[in-house]
Amino acid sequence: MPWREDVLRKLKETRQASAEISLLSKERKNNSLQVLARLLREKMPAILNANRADLDKASKSGYSPAFMDRLTLTPERVEKMAVACQQVSSLPDPVGQIIWETTRPNGLRIQRLRVPIGVIAIIYESRPDVTVEAAILCLKAGNAVVLRGGKEARFSNTMLVELIKQALRETEITEKGINLIAEGGRAAVSFLLQQTDLVDLVIPRGGESLINTVVRSSRIPVVKHYKGVCHTYVDAHADLRMAVEVTFNAKVQRPGTCNATETLLVHRDIASSFLPLMAEKFQAAGVEMRGCPVTCALVPQAKPAAETDWGKEFLALIIAIKVVNSLGEAIEHISRYGTKHSDAIITEDSAAASEFLQKVDSACVYHNASTRFTDGGQFGLGAEIGISTDKIHARGPMGLEELTTYKYVIHGQGQIRS
Amino acid sequence: MPWREDVLRKLKETRQASAEISLLSKERKNNSLQVLARLLREKMPAILNANRADLDKASKSGYSPAFMDRLTLTPERVEKMAVACQQVSSLPDPVGQIIWETTRPNGLRIQRLRVPIGVIAIIYESRPDVTVEAAILCLKAGNAVVLRGGKEARFSNTMLVELIKQALRETEITEKGINLIAEGGRAAVSFLLQQTDLVDLVIPRGGESLINTVVRSSRIPVVKHYKGVCHTYVDAHADLRMAVEVTFNAKVQRPGTCNATETLLVHRDIASSFLPLMAEKFQAAGVEMRGCPVTCALVPQAKPAAETDWGKEFLALIIAIKVVNSLGEAIEHISRYGTKHSDAIITEDSAAASEFLQKVDSACVYHNASTRFTDGGQFGLGAEIGISTDKIHARGPMGLEELTTYKYVIHGQGQIRS
Repeated sequence: MPWREDVLRKLKETRQASAEISLLSKERKNNSLQVLARLLREKMPAILNANRADLDKASKSGYSPAFMDRLTLTPERVEKMAVACQQVSSLPDPVGQIIWETTRPNGLRIQRLRVPIGVIAIIYESRPDVTVEAAILCLKAGNAVVLRGGKEARFSNTMLVELIKQALRETEITEKGINLIAEGGRAAVSFLLQQTDLVDLVIPRGGESLINTVVRSSRIPVVKHYKGVCHTYVDAHADLRMAVEVTFNAKVQRPGTCNATETLLVHRDIASSFLPLMAEKFQAAGVEMRGCPVTCALVPQAKPAAETDWGKEFLALIIAIKVVNSLGEAIEHISRYGTKHSDAIITEDSAAASEFLQKVDSACVYHNASTRFTDGGQFGLGAEIGISTDKIHARGPMGLEELTTYKYVIHGQGQIRS
Repeated sequence: MPWREDVLRKLKETRQASAEISLLSKERKNNSLQVLARLLREKMPAILNANRADLDKASKSGYSPAFMDRLTLTPERVEKMAVACQQVSSLPDPVGQIIWETTRPNGLRIQRLRVPIGVIAIIYESRPDVTVEAAILCLKAGNAVVLRGGKEARFSNTMLVELIKQALRETEITEKGINLIAEGGRAAVSFLLQQTDLVDLVIPRGGESLINTVVRSSRIPVVKHYKGVCHTYVDAHADLRMAVEVTFNAKVQRPGTCNATETLLVHRDIASSFLPLMAEKFQAAGVEMRGCPVTCALVPQAKPAAETDWGKEFLALIIAIKVVNSLGEAIEHISRYGTKHSDAIITEDSAAASEFLQKVDSACVYHNASTRFTDGGQFGLGAEIGISTDKIHARGPMGLEELTTYKYVIHGQGQIRS
């Protein structure tokens, strides 16, 4: 395996650099991000050329239009990367923040301090826009980063990582703080995932099969961003107008995102007044409705839902609709088919709302608002690397804080334990 | 595999119970812990009988005295369990705590709320005292729990889990909130570790090989409590008397614990004044010293250290001693041989202290205090399930808070995203 040495060398280099990266002042990190923004704009022709090489090669392999679109960089998309660098540079630096502090009766002063995690590996598909976005969030949080993008984006990624390295060099930061591992195919990924001493955290970004592959072979902790099968539940005591507006927004405003609602649950007591109104609005927007038998009886436009429609992430203008007999049945349905991402209740009944918010075990639970708000920016947390569907370490929008850990710093005057 | 069905049934049962356990009020949980304390005292003869059966069986298999000691329950040890139940019941309940709250410009009120993790599996060796201790911490934090103890403690564990179930029943809580998986040998553990839908977190408690086995086969997140190779570094500008007292305490006060210091690093400028004083005190206490060549030249009582003595967790009255040329060399040594547990600097030089505290990447870093303080109780965090040497989710003493996660609860008035 000729790539083995090379991968190991890069990982060791990144681990070594992480000590320096972790101690950088916020000014130096921000400066570096500003330089990167400038370089992305200056070198746009070279970036687009590299991307052209990837596209030419991929076009011969018969990938889907959606795949080719994700692989494509345009001047607008590169400009967006540059803007992201500036935005991330303007975010507060979480590193060094004192999370908690206490002075013990024996005089020991104990501080819980936010510190970088160390080395983070990002494993992703052939989406060169992820390269810059993931790298800058990791670096801003004081982490060194190892990137492993899909092989089809190799030329683009190599160019982008070279620019990030140049930005680090220009601001006198070790360029070894970021490395791209392009070699070695799947075997290299599984080799990387065994290096518990060299990598502290793995974040796979991509579809379910990529995440499952990583989870299956990793001995390094993984934070998972699985799909979002989000539900909106319209309770018996919902405000009808609000229920229609919020559900419509949750489905239609941007259906391709993980926080879009995929299933609508409706209490039977409100179904006959709510569903016809809702269906009319959905139909006008071209939303395909797949309903349970009760829904189909109330909504002639709906097709019968198959069992597989519950729990499906359509990412499209399709919605599954089910009439339930009770709040309990709605909660049960979400527990069975949901993905612990984002789920909403629409109701004027505060007892029902509070039961839903307590019992639905998802990263984000909403009362009278659209599931589309699950987003670091919308929550006021700044940029995010993804939405965690895990319960360990980070849940929901994963921003700069979630890319850090903490340490206890204890200040004494010679205390000993008796 | 006849155990397969049985294990799966218990895991499903626990998962189902976790919804109820997660919503229990602190009064109900505390009540249950008080009842358990009473039952442990009342049923002491039965517990000791069950333990006797384990001991009889184990005594035929030629286990080490240390192993037999860990397997043994005595009236004092059972009483300690009962006291632990009362102590944990008196700790504040982390569940429901609002960690962070914001109101967005659009009126959305976003709360980050502490919630239980769900189902926690504890995998441990043949130490029946862990059974009660681990179970009560998980339950108090609102989690359902699956226990898998070493097979040699099977009778004791079965009896103890039966008592915990009885305490739950007596206080009208589902007894399915705790289950013991005793069947199926190693294959059952590896089967359990694949059930990502049924278990949210795995905490292995025991030696390195147990932890490594779990990490190797688990698809469920694991928080690791690896060994503690702790260092005390006596800087050039240390107060001599304090350095001797603190180092002595860190090594001698309880050498069998993970937070005891295993290696002493000494700056060369202070070595000739400090080491003879230190060696005298160590020798008087029967501490075996294994030194680098410079140490051996200064301390006639020291034996030469082997390369394997650096990074060794002696858990005994043995200390490795090395003279270093600089603070940087000390930090380098800790980074190479340490286990990211607890490390201390003794110095009057605040710049040196601050560099050490920043650069040493351990869960707990000390200035002028004994490493022996790394403990949930000593930090004022209450009881702990262990000391995490991981950087993800929980670091250092892992108490009730670290057995929880959070969710975002969003209160709206019909907000939609534009």
